[in-house]
Amino acid sequence: MNGIGKEFMERTKFQYAERSDQSLGYPQPPLQSVSEDEGPVLDLPDPKDIQVDRTDLREAIESRTSTRNYRMEPISLEELSYLLWCTQGVKQSKDSVTFRTVPSAGARHALETYLLVNNVEGLDKGLYHFLPIEHELARIEAGEHIAEHIRSACLDQPFVVNSAVTFIWTAVPNRMKWRYGERGYRYLHLDVGHVCQNLYLSAQSVGCGVCAIAAFLDDNMNALLRIDGEKEFTIYIATVGKK
Amino acid sequence: MNGIGKEFMERTKFQYAERSDQSLGYPQPPLQSVSEDEGPVLDLPDPKDIQVDRTDLREAIESRTSTRNYRMEPISLEELSYLLWCTQGVKQSKDSVTFRTVPSAGARHALETYLLVNNVEGLDKGLYHFLPIEHELARIEAGEHIAEHIRSACLDQPFVVNSAVTFIWTAVPNRMKWRYGERGYRYLHLDVGHVCQNLYLSAQSVGCGVCAIAAFLDDNMNALLRIDGEKEFTIYIATVGKK
Repeated sequence: MNGIGKEFMERTKFQYAERSDQSLGYPQPPLQSVSEDEGPVLDLPDPKDIQVDRTDLREAIESRTSTRNYRMEPISLEELSYLLWCTQGVKQSKDSVTFRTVPSAGARHALETYLLVNNVEGLDKGLYHFLPIEHELARIEAGEHIAEHIRSACLDQPFVVNSAVTFIWTAVPNRMKWRYGERGYRYLHLDVGHVCQNLYLSAQSVGCGVCAIAAFLDDNMNALLRIDGEKEFTIYIATVGKK
Repeated sequence: MNGIGKEFMERTKFQYAERSDQSLGYPQPPLQSVSEDEGPVLDLPDPKDIQVDRTDLREAIESRTSTRNYRMEPISLEELSYLLWCTQGVKQSKDSVTFRTVPSAGARHALETYLLVNNVEGLDKGLYHFLPIEHELARIEAGEHIAEHIRSACLDQPFVVNSAVTFIWTAVPNRMKWRYGERGYRYLHLDVGHVCQNLYLSAQSVGCGVCAIAAFLDDNMNALLRIDGEKEFTIYIATVGKK
């Protein structure tokens, strides 16, 4: 028992809040990250034009389970676009703040979404980065074995590659710490919990099941995404596929 | 910059996972906590018998905002019961594991729900503890000034007491650490993010708005709930009231 969890909770108590970078006059970090290895950008269907089946909220909440087995059937680009919209979609931008389909502490929105695409109509398999402000996908050149490497970093859980798509959320702590200091590390986890729950629910409108994954080899995941593990790190993963 | 957040993320990497209490043969902690100061228990209306307006999931996601101003109108006991059901409701218990309306890492469900009741039909004002397995509320004797004390511990944000009810979630880390060790502190935050998002969405079916609160004086909140801040600590708060 190394006690780091208890120590983290103690030292991030509100009473110990340090002066934030915001209060010290530092500029706000960028609203979204650009990876060095980003390739061509692809437009996604506009969520406004996407029709999904009406889904009763209560039924969606009550019938939610974690689904690890999927039919080997693709999801459409419209369905993927809809899921990205429901999990990180930007409804409004004002004064360098984005308002999204999910709540975030102080509207900091310090998360990024990467996708391991396994079986999506109209998309090559591989790794992508979602750009929420433009609602676009950027291809990341990650080599032809990226899916197997990510499966391995997820402790070989087969549904990581049997899914139609696997969402990989990263956190960019400076975007949150700028206002909230070290306590912001709590908020990153709260926020991605909001996001994952919206994925669980909205996936049901497109006939998909979801399984969240919090057990992964952090260093391996970060290396595969080519992020440094400190300024940006993998925080949560979820697989999606047709039920 | 004290660096505790970075240190926490480093030392809770999966690669450093210690042998869990579960793997060492220790018994599973109880599924739900009982406070020393719990008074009379009240039945809640059975969720099966509660009708709520059908709400389109997509509309709920797209129209969600954080609402800090409420009408001074009570919510009904049925509405409160429904919100508790959607956030922590036990759908099934099997082999000492509960399956709920929200996902939790390894179905550990290491959260507790307390309520500051300000304006709920049929309930005296004050502090309550939700018992999810029985779907009941236990009254906690907390004195007549509890609302003002909680408002003060929430940095005097007035909607804490202007709400119809304020949800206060606590975490019981041993219930999570038993399986996942120190990394479980990450999962507690992910899990309560799922829960809060369900509150945001389900509240819309009963004409209510929600505002999540992550900034609170930890020691003060814990003292008011009479929890020790280590074996159980306040992790997230959300206000609910009629829009």
